[in-house]
Amino acid sequence: MKTLKIPEATIIRLSVYSRHLTDVDRKGIITTSSGDIADGVGVSPAQVRKDLAYFGEFGTRGVGYNVKDLRQHILRILGLGVDWNVTLVGAGNLGLALCSYKGFRERGFIITSIFDSDPSKVGTMIGNVKVLPIEQLEEVAKQNQTQIGIIAVPSAVAQDIADKLINAGVEAILNFAPVVLNVPPQIELRNVDLAVNLEVLTFNVGAQRF
Amino acid sequence: MKTLKIPEATIIRLSVYSRHLTDVDRKGIITTSSGDIADGVGVSPAQVRKDLAYFGEFGTRGVGYNVKDLRQHILRILGLGVDWNVTLVGAGNLGLALCSYKGFRERGFIITSIFDSDPSKVGTMIGNVKVLPIEQLEEVAKQNQTQIGIIAVPSAVAQDIADKLINAGVEAILNFAPVVLNVPPQIELRNVDLAVNLEVLTFNVGAQRF
Repeated sequence: MKTLKIPEATIIRLSVYSRHLTDVDRKGIITTSSGDIADGVGVSPAQVRKDLAYFGEFGTRGVGYNVKDLRQHILRILGLGVDWNVTLVGAGNLGLALCSYKGFRERGFIITSIFDSDPSKVGTMIGNVKVLPIEQLEEVAKQNQTQIGIIAVPSAVAQDIADKLINAGVEAILNFAPVVLNVPPQIELRNVDLAVNLEVLTFNVGAQRF
Repeated sequence: MKTLKIPEATIIRLSVYSRHLTDVDRKGIITTSSGDIADGVGVSPAQVRKDLAYFGEFGTRGVGYNVKDLRQHILRILGLGVDWNVTLVGAGNLGLALCSYKGFRERGFIITSIFDSDPSKVGTMIGNVKVLPIEQLEEVAKQNQTQIGIIAVPSAVAQDIADKLINAGVEAILNFAPVVLNVPPQIELRNVDLAVNLEVLTFNVGAQRF
């Protein structure tokens, strides 16, 4: 299976399609079409067909897609359908928001350990997970076989945390600190800069005015 | 100026370049090159040149770019360099995280009003902004001439909040609720689904294994 050339925008849309199919499945609907999916998520039917076509043949001409089958297939493509062991570093407001974010658990992302450097936070419980001191990060993440690390700490310490996560054997890092991190090529890194989202909006608002 | 065909990925990279140029400018560096920018942000020099070329000619062959000029130019392209009046709806953990997010204010996104439906939150201060009851959203956002609304409320009420923001005259909405919102075509809408970021990572981890 050759997947490396697939545009990231397609992966993001697959993720959106699978959520929509989860809703449709809950309503007891058995079959759907690219047109229905397109309407449900706000893209064109051609886009839905093109995105799915990257991964082979789905559906039956004139009948459409079986909702459960298509949903399962997309989840497998996305590497879901199994639980992922996630370590969160940083128990500030953002960390707390991520812990209470229902979307993670629903999709199989389980935050199994949380670390912070603030002694007033260490030892407190977030949900059913105890906040541990940052000094234990490498040891505990290694023991837990953590696959994904989430960095929700200030920029100044983000690289140090990334290095510790990599030493502990994580395969992927989601970074919320607005700083460029250096990681080895085999580590999957994704930066979430919340202000960038606003800047795409203001660019588009500006473009409408020209 | 025809800007509508510019890929969103280019806009996101311009945002990243401008942050890098801010850092470089603070260090007192006068000129830079596409190679330096590329090294600083982790893309290829050709990508930097291609992204900038969408917006005309920059720099001088053999001399490079003036750091301050290029930074200013990119900020103007992004619709920055002016302050944007932002209303936040939802003062939960995510809302609090967004309020304390330094990146917003630095880039000119000023949260001037905050609304919540929880009576225990209404009247409390977040920074120097008082949390107001959701019933006042339309009136206050209209008075403030709010341009951007941020939705950080549960999915079930997100559409209602979007409708209120649109009635109040916002031009753009950043939505953190994991639900598809219906908005008129002239409203710029951007959805931030935090789990999607993790799914792009797990897809890529999976793709490495094939």
